[in-house]
Amino acid sequence: MNLYQNLAERLKASIQQGIYSPGDKVPSVRRFAAQQQVSQSSVVSAFRLLESEGWLEARPQSGFFVNVSGVASSPSQPSGETSAPCTVRVSDLVIRLYQATQRENLVSLGAAVPKHALLPLKDLREAMARALRRSPDAGSRYSFPPGEVALRVQIARRGVEAGCAFSPDDIQVTSGCQEAINLALRAVTQAGDIVAIESPAFFGTLQAIESLGLQALEVPSDANGLRLEALSLALERWPIKAVMAVTNFSNPTGSLMPDARKRELVKLLRKHEIPLIEDDIYGDLAHGRERPRAAKAYDLDGYVLYCGSFSKTLAPGYRIGWLAPGRWKAAVERFKYDSTFATATLPQLALAEYLASGRYERHLTRLRSTARSNLQQAQALVARTFPHATQISSPTGGYLLWLQLPEDCDAMRLQQSALAAGISISPGSLFSPNGKYANCIRLSVALPWDAQVEDAIKRLGKLAMDQVAAVASRR
Amino acid sequence: MNLYQNLAERLKASIQQGIYSPGDKVPSVRRFAAQQQVSQSSVVSAFRLLESEGWLEARPQSGFFVNVSGVASSPSQPSGETSAPCTVRVSDLVIRLYQATQRENLVSLGAAVPKHALLPLKDLREAMARALRRSPDAGSRYSFPPGEVALRVQIARRGVEAGCAFSPDDIQVTSGCQEAINLALRAVTQAGDIVAIESPAFFGTLQAIESLGLQALEVPSDANGLRLEALSLALERWPIKAVMAVTNFSNPTGSLMPDARKRELVKLLRKHEIPLIEDDIYGDLAHGRERPRAAKAYDLDGYVLYCGSFSKTLAPGYRIGWLAPGRWKAAVERFKYDSTFATATLPQLALAEYLASGRYERHLTRLRSTARSNLQQAQALVARTFPHATQISSPTGGYLLWLQLPEDCDAMRLQQSALAAGISISPGSLFSPNGKYANCIRLSVALPWDAQVEDAIKRLGKLAMDQVAAVASRR
Repeated sequence: MNLYQNLAERLKASIQQGIYSPGDKVPSVRRFAAQQQVSQSSVVSAFRLLESEGWLEARPQSGFFVNVSGVASSPSQPSGETSAPCTVRVSDLVIRLYQATQRENLVSLGAAVPKHALLPLKDLREAMARALRRSPDAGSRYSFPPGEVALRVQIARRGVEAGCAFSPDDIQVTSGCQEAINLALRAVTQAGDIVAIESPAFFGTLQAIESLGLQALEVPSDANGLRLEALSLALERWPIKAVMAVTNFSNPTGSLMPDARKRELVKLLRKHEIPLIEDDIYGDLAHGRERPRAAKAYDLDGYVLYCGSFSKTLAPGYRIGWLAPGRWKAAVERFKYDSTFATATLPQLALAEYLASGRYERHLTRLRSTARSNLQQAQALVARTFPHATQISSPTGGYLLWLQLPEDCDAMRLQQSALAAGISISPGSLFSPNGKYANCIRLSVALPWDAQVEDAIKRLGKLAMDQVAAVASRR
Repeated sequence: MNLYQNLAERLKASIQQGIYSPGDKVPSVRRFAAQQQVSQSSVVSAFRLLESEGWLEARPQSGFFVNVSGVASSPSQPSGETSAPCTVRVSDLVIRLYQATQRENLVSLGAAVPKHALLPLKDLREAMARALRRSPDAGSRYSFPPGEVALRVQIARRGVEAGCAFSPDDIQVTSGCQEAINLALRAVTQAGDIVAIESPAFFGTLQAIESLGLQALEVPSDANGLRLEALSLALERWPIKAVMAVTNFSNPTGSLMPDARKRELVKLLRKHEIPLIEDDIYGDLAHGRERPRAAKAYDLDGYVLYCGSFSKTLAPGYRIGWLAPGRWKAAVERFKYDSTFATATLPQLALAEYLASGRYERHLTRLRSTARSNLQQAQALVARTFPHATQISSPTGGYLLWLQLPEDCDAMRLQQSALAAGISISPGSLFSPNGKYANCIRLSVALPWDAQVEDAIKRLGKLAMDQVAAVASRR
């Protein structure tokens, strides 16, 4: 297949998925070329091909639109919204962005990780010192899978908060949640298999899917998470081997799946005998009193592989995550042995000490309150300073804000000008294998709120306004 | 293919590889069934099939032997020793053995890892404390790939000892050597590809090959490591995508590849444009004054991916390894981001502090001297107490002893009776994907030498003698 045919297939898939509906304007040639890192002439060829096939229509002075009649009459178009699987290529982009943001003195609204000022570093250092005193030979000792029992006991205890009855034996300690996601995917898929994901989805999940040679299928999501009717149709149509979802305060949109939908999701997948890989890394960050349950709480038969971590709430540098792999316990343990063998011993013991001290709950109370307050201030500031049509998410947990800017805005370009102004953000394209969300950005406000942060958000708003004005003046 | 046909193919491959030569006795039905975890009747069917094809001949009261004329006239048999690639299935066995040895009070001669009494734990704890003081926010900070620069500087400096001129930018920090091996394999192969390995080979390498869906090709090795004429023939015959070798004090045999062969190996692979994954985890443990060079020292074009770690000399529990990936730097970095993202920050900083203190050399001097002395004592004891025909390796570095027991000995059974007697050892089958070395064992003597260790080795010798006597009495 030629490059332009490939591009055409990709855009067609987005239309089939309902990402662009009949009558919608598709991205401009310039923006699509930038997203896909190809020449504008390739994109023009692709658009012309889709026009000749009846998928698009060109409107003078306006661009290309999804053809209402053409799509509706397409024989390959099923009723309702379903999706087409696609290969994923986000890793290089993610890495370039990470590397660009590793300089000093940036106002960091990009990475979804709490700044050190919000973390109990002193308590953690004391816990590390206690662990060293109690286990002076920890440095010399491999922590064989499934990992230190003292830590697994604490993780199992915390499961209750999410409605899960874990025994320490149900838990595999991992080198961060990214390893948990990788182990889960490796346990339930083979290269080439299709994994259904939320749209938009956490880019770390997309990276894992990419590097394992899997296909991603974007399933439409709303403020309540994965849309089950869309997922159900997709399950009928495609040989899906696993479903991945951040059920509580998803990354990037902050959506929260209600208990009823979680129960339905588990039931649906059980019926199809398809595993759910649930990433609950933000669940502890509910703004309200109640921590939401995990979908895992409704899992009677071990079809949910439940991933968590302390990286978003406590100690990113420790690289401690975990996985409750249900019926795939043996496979997960084997891949852990074969790939990284053991997780560092001391960080596990230090976290076990810290959790046993009972201070985690108090820390969480503070962190949740800060996250809520920061998000409220950020929302208000965005509403005041960003272009009028900007849509702002309203998450009830976590510290991520998802902004949908006016259609003509180019988040990649905004990210670059923001970086030049000393501010890091995450552009929306990171969160879709089909180059969707090119006019969206994610802001992380897990930092002490101050004048510098306020100023950074105002400057971002100004940069977005400038883009809108520049586009308008070219018309 | 039926199970027994599969077994027959596997044994045929071993014969084609020169693992069993014409006239050699192949393993007994009972032992082969135990190795492959199949019923004895399947093995009998396989042997009968090979007999009908002229590969084996049955000798009454003696068992099955490789047929001299049949093999020699086989059209698929090339001149010289080459190999047939095979899938690998050692992980489950390795994990079962690891799990069996995780109880208290074992005399641990199994795992190739130094006991805490041989490690500078106090110095390491002090280094950890210094790292915590100097970087109080280390727990809150992701260590983005390629890892902490302070540690990469120290690793690059130590490269000089192995004849390598590294810059810190050449180094990727990993979660132990096992991750380094995995990243290297993922960077240069796809599932289904053939990787040439030493015979015998480190089982961790076999586990990585297995879980990545690769094929292993056993290449004959001698006391100087990989045999290049055999490798050269294999390169002509098979589409080999990578070669893996522990060049210095290999695991399990302790073989040391001389400089001239290293140079030739690098040249040969450069000619074929095939990467060498070099595992130099034992190089620092030379018994003599001189640390041997790495094959990487002869690598002008970046075709060597060089793996190392501090797990065998300093701090197994820290899980810190590294990889100098040559021309595959970008691919390795991408797989690191996608699979485990970052290595824990504090263990990296603590090791950087320790290495900068200059104490590593002094520690190595002690550890090398202990390893040499222990090996000498173990060799002498084995020579006195094991069956007469036992062949004993004579490594000039490291702390591993490789014993080839009389042909009738069953190392898996010996391992089980040893465990019942409170001693762990590693049976030879772990080190071959073709079930070779079933009469070999590996002893690791990285522990303080004392009466308990002496007694354990004597008891092992007695158990082996008992096996030999039992076999003789059944004849």
